Amino acid sequence: MIVGILGAGQLARMIALAGYPLGLRFIFLDPSSDACANSLGEHLHGDYNDPRLLAQLAERADVVTYEFENVPADVAAFLAAHTQVHPAPKALAVAQDRLIEKAFFHDIGIPTAAYSAVDSFESLEQAMSIIGWPAILKSCTMGYDGKGQSLLKSAEDLKPAWDQLDGVSAVVEAFVPFNREISIIAARNVSGATVFYPLSENLHRGGILRVSKSCDNDPMQKEAEIYISRLMEALDYVGVLALELFEIDGKLIANEFAPRVHNSGHWTIEGAETSQFENHLRAILDLPLGNTTSVDKTAMVNFIGGLPLTNDLLTIPNAHLHLYDKEPRKGRKVAHASVRAKTTEELESLIKKLTTLANQVDNS
Amino acid sequence: MIVGILGAGQLARMIALAGYPLGLRFIFLDPSSDACANSLGEHLHGDYNDPRLLAQLAERADVVTYEFENVPADVAAFLAAHTQVHPAPKALAVAQDRLIEKAFFHDIGIPTAAYSAVDSFESLEQAMSIIGWPAILKSCTMGYDGKGQSLLKSAEDLKPAWDQLDGVSAVVEAFVPFNREISIIAARNVSGATVFYPLSENLHRGGILRVSKSCDNDPMQKEAEIYISRLMEALDYVGVLALELFEIDGKLIANEFAPRVHNSGHWTIEGAETSQFENHLRAILDLPLGNTTSVDKTAMVNFIGGLPLTNDLLTIPNAHLHLYDKEPRKGRKVAHASVRAKTTEELESLIKKLTTLANQVDNS
Repeated sequence: MIVGILGAGQLARMIALAGYPLGLRFIFLDPSSDACANSLGEHLHGDYNDPRLLAQLAERADVVTYEFENVPADVAAFLAAHTQVHPAPKALAVAQDRLIEKAFFHDIGIPTAAYSAVDSFESLEQAMSIIGWPAILKSCTMGYDGKGQSLLKSAEDLKPAWDQLDGVSAVVEAFVPFNREISIIAARNVSGATVFYPLSENLHRGGILRVSKSCDNDPMQKEAEIYISRLMEALDYVGVLALELFEIDGKLIANEFAPRVHNSGHWTIEGAETSQFENHLRAILDLPLGNTTSVDKTAMVNFIGGLPLTNDLLTIPNAHLHLYDKEPRKGRKVAHASVRAKTTEELESLIKKLTTLANQVDNS
Repeated sequence: MIVGILGAGQLARMIALAGYPLGLRFIFLDPSSDACANSLGEHLHGDYNDPRLLAQLAERADVVTYEFENVPADVAAFLAAHTQVHPAPKALAVAQDRLIEKAFFHDIGIPTAAYSAVDSFESLEQAMSIIGWPAILKSCTMGYDGKGQSLLKSAEDLKPAWDQLDGVSAVVEAFVPFNREISIIAARNVSGATVFYPLSENLHRGGILRVSKSCDNDPMQKEAEIYISRLMEALDYVGVLALELFEIDGKLIANEFAPRVHNSGHWTIEGAETSQFENHLRAILDLPLGNTTSVDKTAMVNFIGGLPLTNDLLTIPNAHLHLYDKEPRKGRKVAHASVRAKTTEELESLIKKLTTLANQVDNS
């Protein structure tokens, strides 16, 4: 069985590593000649919208999936017409545009922060009179790791933030005074069976995820499962889905979703009975989904822009290193490490050791 | 960093899968064009003693290791002269010949069953008068999975067993009325740091390993660690080493050792904090060795000669499937599955589910 993946970055790499034990082989389409999953399968080298390569991918792969949501609509449509593609193009279309995404959340009863569409400086000013300060201005498309976002603290911030958008459509959202950032990851297979992972508690800095921790028996688990279930049903979703949420005084509001395996679920490799990567493959191949129960307490720390010495990392007890085989570069996720522990105290001590190393080399 | 491996079977495959997260790449030398690790690295296709390919391997790899012990002595010597090879050729030389191996055990104070060298039918008869019945006649070299072995229950068995050897040198050993078959797996890095895994309790049938279970706090752990430590020190060993033992009335005697990762340690992928495959790589690269503590109770079941439906296997709760991407063929190890459980009862129930499937397709 051959799985085709659009993209050959670290997510594709970890999907492939989870897939070999299931007897799968991989074919990647990626424009980069040294994309980090290339050595784990066949590499179709070229643009994502190259019709010849897309035809090859559709022809050769039994099923196609992707590691990023910004797949051009015509590419997704071409693939869907020629082979099995999971998740389906609809999930991409919704996830690619913040305004469509927020309207979608609203339609299925998932609360969000107050927001308003913005297509001119005047409409931004008008929206702010309703939403109130502080707020965040975000481009509707192509935003990730905090890119295309500006914090609006006072009227002075409006003009520079608007100019930075350079005319692209945008949405302004109320800034949420959250208690915690969390995410829920779920998988749904072709037959409709669904599993949920324990919540991840996430720490971002500079718009980039830094640390995720698994949360067993979290009081917000049930509410998060209800929301992500609605999302999966409404999208007739197949694969792993991640929903990012804010907790405010015991209530959840949705931030955004990612129709793919997600950085906040990397801890599942060591920390759950079945990883998000394996369950994504099981889901798109319509195999029985694996148990998502946590294995001990687990946390994951990202390395951004720089790497400590492998020797220093592996000296940390129970540190599981995941190098992405990417050249360090400013703002680039180049590795993560996970730790498992029996107690919260032990876990916090291990997280501290990892974040100390991560901060020493940070270039974000 | 590039690791060269002689052999591209399932052991090389699992070493490579453990090595990608450490940022390693792989180059395999294997005579089979469809060897199951080939898709995980570069494949040098040809005989193990092809001087041109060996020179390429030595040139390109930062360190070379192997997945089987029957590496020809001149090949091991060539590689050792041109690059780093771990474990060193001496371990191969001892492991390749049962007689040398038993003498080595004896020299360093590791008990074995009574044995005698046999080089003629007369010497076999003479040996049996000392060793007593039953006994096992084994060829000195090239034996694995019970191949080249004959059980001697009475004088009638001597002639057919001798004839089957076809003149190769052999050893006759007293049959050991063991209570348990166990093995210990350890790793030692270039700097001499050593870690030991919890014992594996093993079940063989027809000379082939069928089931291994991890044994936490086993009363024989300490004795096994003493023996394997002596072996590693005497061989100045680097890498993962497996020592197979029999337990008889609370004492251990050695059966044989394997200078490589071992089937009875496959449970460590899910069942130990760090797998034997990762620790083998850490050892030969002189990285800090990973924690070997067990994660829950774990067992592994082999699939020999045939494969159940993936769907049936993945329906078993907590089953972790490891397909080797090999065509099923009589006597061939084609996959294993591991299960983790919190209690012995749950573990036994899961083992039963797996062995039922394994027995249905068994072709050994």
